[in-house]
Amino acid sequence: MDGMNEPLRDIAHLGHVELLTPKPAESLWYFTELLGMEKVHEEGRSAYLRGWGDYAASTLKLTEAEHAGVGHIAWRAISPQALDRRAEAIEATGLGIGWSNGDFGHGRCYRFHDPDGHLMEVYYDEERYVAPEELRSALRNQPMKYPGRGVGVRRTDHLAVLCRDVPKNREFVQSCLGAMLREQIRLEDGTLEAGSWMSTTAVHHEIAYVVDAKGLHGRLHHLALWVDNREDVLRAADIFMENGVFIEAGPSKHNNSQAFYLYSYEPGGNRVEVYNSGFMVFAPDFEPVIWDEETRAGGVYWGQKLPDSFRTYATPVDDGGEATADRPMPVIDPR
Amino acid sequence: MDGMNEPLRDIAHLGHVELLTPKPAESLWYFTELLGMEKVHEEGRSAYLRGWGDYAASTLKLTEAEHAGVGHIAWRAISPQALDRRAEAIEATGLGIGWSNGDFGHGRCYRFHDPDGHLMEVYYDEERYVAPEELRSALRNQPMKYPGRGVGVRRTDHLAVLCRDVPKNREFVQSCLGAMLREQIRLEDGTLEAGSWMSTTAVHHEIAYVVDAKGLHGRLHHLALWVDNREDVLRAADIFMENGVFIEAGPSKHNNSQAFYLYSYEPGGNRVEVYNSGFMVFAPDFEPVIWDEETRAGGVYWGQKLPDSFRTYATPVDDGGEATADRPMPVIDPR
Amino acid sequence: MDGMNEPLRDIAHLGHVELLTPKPAESLWYFTELLGMEKVHEEGRSAYLRGWGDYAASTLKLTEAEHAGVGHIAWRAISPQALDRRAEAIEATGLGIGWSNGDFGHGRCYRFHDPDGHLMEVYYDEERYVAPEELRSALRNQPMKYPGRGVGVRRTDHLAVLCRDVPKNREFVQSCLGAMLREQIRLEDGTLEAGSWMSTTAVHHEIAYVVDAKGLHGRLHHLALWVDNREDVLRAADIFMENGVFIEAGPSKHNNSQAFYLYSYEPGGNRVEVYNSGFMVFAPDFEPVIWDEETRAGGVYWGQKLPDSFRTYATPVDDGGEATADRPMPVIDPR
Amino acid sequence: MDGMNEPLRDIAHLGHVELLTPKPAESLWYFTELLGMEKVHEEGRSAYLRGWGDYAASTLKLTEAEHAGVGHIAWRAISPQALDRRAEAIEATGLGIGWSNGDFGHGRCYRFHDPDGHLMEVYYDEERYVAPEELRSALRNQPMKYPGRGVGVRRTDHLAVLCRDVPKNREFVQSCLGAMLREQIRLEDGTLEAGSWMSTTAVHHEIAYVVDAKGLHGRLHHLALWVDNREDVLRAADIFMENGVFIEAGPSKHNNSQAFYLYSYEPGGNRVEVYNSGFMVFAPDFEPVIWDEETRAGGVYWGQKLPDSFRTYATPVDDGGEATADRPMPVIDPR
Repeated sequence: MDGMNEPLRDIAHLGHVELLTPKPAESLWYFTELLGMEKVHEEGRSAYLRGWGDYAASTLKLTEAEHAGVGHIAWRAISPQALDRRAEAIEATGLGIGWSNGDFGHGRCYRFHDPDGHLMEVYYDEERYVAPEELRSALRNQPMKYPGRGVGVRRTDHLAVLCRDVPKNREFVQSCLGAMLREQIRLEDGTLEAGSWMSTTAVHHEIAYVVDAKGLHGRLHHLALWVDNREDVLRAADIFMENGVFIEAGPSKHNNSQAFYLYSYEPGGNRVEVYNSGFMVFAPDFEPVIWDEETRAGGVYWGQKLPDSFRTYATPVDDGGEATADRPMPVIDPR
Repeated sequence: MDGMNEPLRDIAHLGHVELLTPKPAESLWYFTELLGMEKVHEEGRSAYLRGWGDYAASTLKLTEAEHAGVGHIAWRAISPQALDRRAEAIEATGLGIGWSNGDFGHGRCYRFHDPDGHLMEVYYDEERYVAPEELRSALRNQPMKYPGRGVGVRRTDHLAVLCRDVPKNREFVQSCLGAMLREQIRLEDGTLEAGSWMSTTAVHHEIAYVVDAKGLHGRLHHLALWVDNREDVLRAADIFMENGVFIEAGPSKHNNSQAFYLYSYEPGGNRVEVYNSGFMVFAPDFEPVIWDEETRAGGVYWGQKLPDSFRTYATPVDDGGEATADRPMPVIDPR
Repeated sequence: MDGMNEPLRDIAHLGHVELLTPKPAESLWYFTELLGMEKVHEEGRSAYLRGWGDYAASTLKLTEAEHAGVGHIAWRAISPQALDRRAEAIEATGLGIGWSNGDFGHGRCYRFHDPDGHLMEVYYDEERYVAPEELRSALRNQPMKYPGRGVGVRRTDHLAVLCRDVPKNREFVQSCLGAMLREQIRLEDGTLEAGSWMSTTAVHHEIAYVVDAKGLHGRLHHLALWVDNREDVLRAADIFMENGVFIEAGPSKHNNSQAFYLYSYEPGGNRVEVYNSGFMVFAPDFEPVIWDEETRAGGVYWGQKLPDSFRTYATPVDDGGEATADRPMPVIDPR
Repeated sequence: MDGMNEPLRDIAHLGHVELLTPKPAESLWYFTELLGMEKVHEEGRSAYLRGWGDYAASTLKLTEAEHAGVGHIAWRAISPQALDRRAEAIEATGLGIGWSNGDFGHGRCYRFHDPDGHLMEVYYDEERYVAPEELRSALRNQPMKYPGRGVGVRRTDHLAVLCRDVPKNREFVQSCLGAMLREQIRLEDGTLEAGSWMSTTAVHHEIAYVVDAKGLHGRLHHLALWVDNREDVLRAADIFMENGVFIEAGPSKHNNSQAFYLYSYEPGGNRVEVYNSGFMVFAPDFEPVIWDEETRAGGVYWGQKLPDSFRTYATPVDDGGEATADRPMPVIDPR
């Protein structure tokens, strides 16, 4: 084993995510009043939100757009040098876009597309959240008061995106971001890689690539927000029902990741998961877990199947219209 | 065994409780914003509150007063006839006050004092809560939307009061209200009855009488509000800390009742318990559980002792002033 | 309102249930090793079990039989007089069988059938459980040590049986046992009573009658065992999966009763529910909650439907063979 | 910022811990029957245990010895090269002992002392656990069946050791192992570093150094085992009480780490923590949290103080005998 085989550790973690919504006021209500996130900033057509446990000033950007979907996905580098190294490596793949001056809460970043067309960026400088007096926690090590409002999600955990070619995208985030492979669905005797779950940290996964059943590009499957226990996931289900939010699946337990999940659609149409548990990966020689048609049994550990929509619904929603297998759904960059 | 030995079943349950507070605005904030109760009515110096699971229009009346304490304690009869029977029986003890025309949410009631001087009433007609459109639950069998605000207490569970003579008060609620004895603390070789826990339902206890260490009369030890699980009790502790509410003890587990508790002081000074679990009693021949100096071990199952204040602090607070062992603290009847 | 309208309170609670199993060893393993119940006695083809929180010596009798199903359902009276009153009232309906000398753990009982043919009994004398030294709890008010083995169910909660005529059976347990109606499913503009949930205590329901979709008699839908919190229900699901026990539905939340459920089939074939939460009923004038085709939405609050088997599977299992709509499945009385 | 400032990432995680016990049979009972760990091997005077979620064959070695305490603390390197680099760096400090041929479950290791005298080792080759048929999980990504026995601890989380000079030991694990500082107690205007919490992963801390109030060397404060939720911590408290295990503190919530804890003494005398929650650290520029006399308030978030023994009790227990401030308690190396 030589030095080249030692793991690449230039990315610290998934930094923040931008969601697009055609119903900004309703989406904002969902994230602040129902999920209990805090709005820290507004600018243009965007609101900047955070969970009470996030150390960064903002981890979720909510931007008004014609269609729901993911705006961009941002990765934080471990150092300025690591940022430069990642920019260089990405540029070499031909997928780079270039440097940007940053946005609320973080400094300059290098922007690029993944092979499927999702907009991504990598950055290092991050504004640490400093709570105003009325939101200061009684705990010195907690960035913000526990809100006691709605679900009370602690932090952004991960997201899953759809793509046309899973191996291509997986290899890209492995080689360019140092993401480590955790689990895979391999169908048809292992020849069809239908989904791959990856992470740059000990957290089970920060990003998943799953094949787009409609053959489209650049779509979002879901964004997952972390709560500290399963009771909070159950409580979230009640809060969603009481407020007319559609629950697509759960609360239940995934076999992949062992996590406890609840999938809802926020008013703008994006699928949002309230998430707890799941195992962490500490082994430097972890062997990815492979699931096939038989072993995955619909993705749900306790026997209930996920509904069909879980396989087909994504944002932007396929309206059966102009998009074709070779032409991606319109993904709007709000900047 | 003759008919007299069959249990008296004229009281359906503890109906509602009135708390007095010298800081009405702050107390209202505590009960509505932190505990998540709903204010359904205001009248004079009183606010009328309810938990989301209470079937009655209101179960907690909060009244401005010079001193904190319990205003009155109300028991619902199982029928109009039962109400008349109870009024007659109480009147015969000489502790009756007389009929009153009722209050917001309930009809005429018969008022009386327990031997220690706590004001009580028994009534039958109760206004069932009908939620306004915006508070209607998605569940037909739930009186009100789960609020998703603060702790989210479901309903009033029980209260504990202090008194100078526990056996006298216990016998009164046993014979006049049909309360069933569940647990007792008997000290000094069983000769000193220091506390008795009683209920008119399958719930472990609805009222406890505990000896007043200061020899005063008419004081409140605590009011307990129910949550559906222990996670909500733990969550309550965080919410209290984040909002500057004093936690006196817990979260932890009682040996008596087996319940999971958290004691705080609401801003007006009354001790309030957030409460879950505890065992129910279904046996018609249940044998009360007796604890002595040795077996009770400070009242806490997992080994931690309750603080001294738990034994001495009650409302109205003893200011060392005008009240004496033979002269009760001023108990204000707000009506 | 006259005295006749005051509630009948002769039954204290559902006492115990006998399940029949064609696989006695495997069923015993399920109840003791997976659910954590304690075997306290064996006699003939029966094993006698209890939950750690049950006050009675035994609450579940497990009897070897050719077919799975419910053997008998026992109700405890509140007094010897109440027992006599119930026997007399039942005898007057023509459904009485007669007095029996009792069984392990309880004294003489009056046996009868409900209109659908389920065998029932009412009794008063009950042996209180006294734990042997090694099973004595550290808590004086807990009948037995918490076992820390498997799920750790606390006590029997309720059962649901199928029948051909719900109103007839409902009226029988209302008038003869004093069961109070809590919820109903009424279909076809309210003309078809498809299910009724009833209780003799503050617990939401102790017995439910649901129409048998196959038109058979005397079948069991499920027996429910109580755990103290929802985490234990989730833990039960893992324990079932790890031990090859079939999970039919859940963990999830019912709309009816608001309870949290998990349905499995024990090795003998009977459906067993691990159960927590649900609301209690204290109101003496509680108005039963009625659900129709639209409002019940499949019986599951969070949106997932129950599987078809939930409507059709019951024990004894319909093998499509000799039983007909007019001829009940064989129900074996093991005594 | 130059390359030297980039974090050292040669250690993957805390690998395993060896505890010494004068009561090996009783300690084994505690870890297997009460905590639910699995014994996978026995050799000489040692038993090798694991939690159901540990990927390694064994994470806890339990060795018979005259005194309780920690035998050794093992760190897994991320690669063979990383192992060599660490051995070299440690050797340069003069604290190295030398290479050892490994032990059950792992390959060769480099052994050394920390400045306070605790025995440590670093290794790379680790045997991945392969469950025998009867212990195989229904989940492909779970190394072993969830046992459903006792508490069911998932994995080893961290340990805390006492030492005479916190800064010296902290600097050693920072520079030689790349441990990252998370929290500190600094008393006397910041001049006295009384405790430091550190980790090589995103987990809050894997090792803590706290000043030994008795001025001794090489002692263990506690070993912490992870459970997936706070309900399991509460359940552990009941299991301990029912089995005569001493609970020193908790269940409650730490301010440092925000974790939920329960401290017991296993029969051999070592303090063992059942642990859940706590925050993870992803920020590459995380600023350690400093607590002083005023802000730490006894180390407990919800207001209850830790008992005095928490500050003074450690293993080996100070018998007031031959050990002096300058002469360490006897620490036995069982190899």
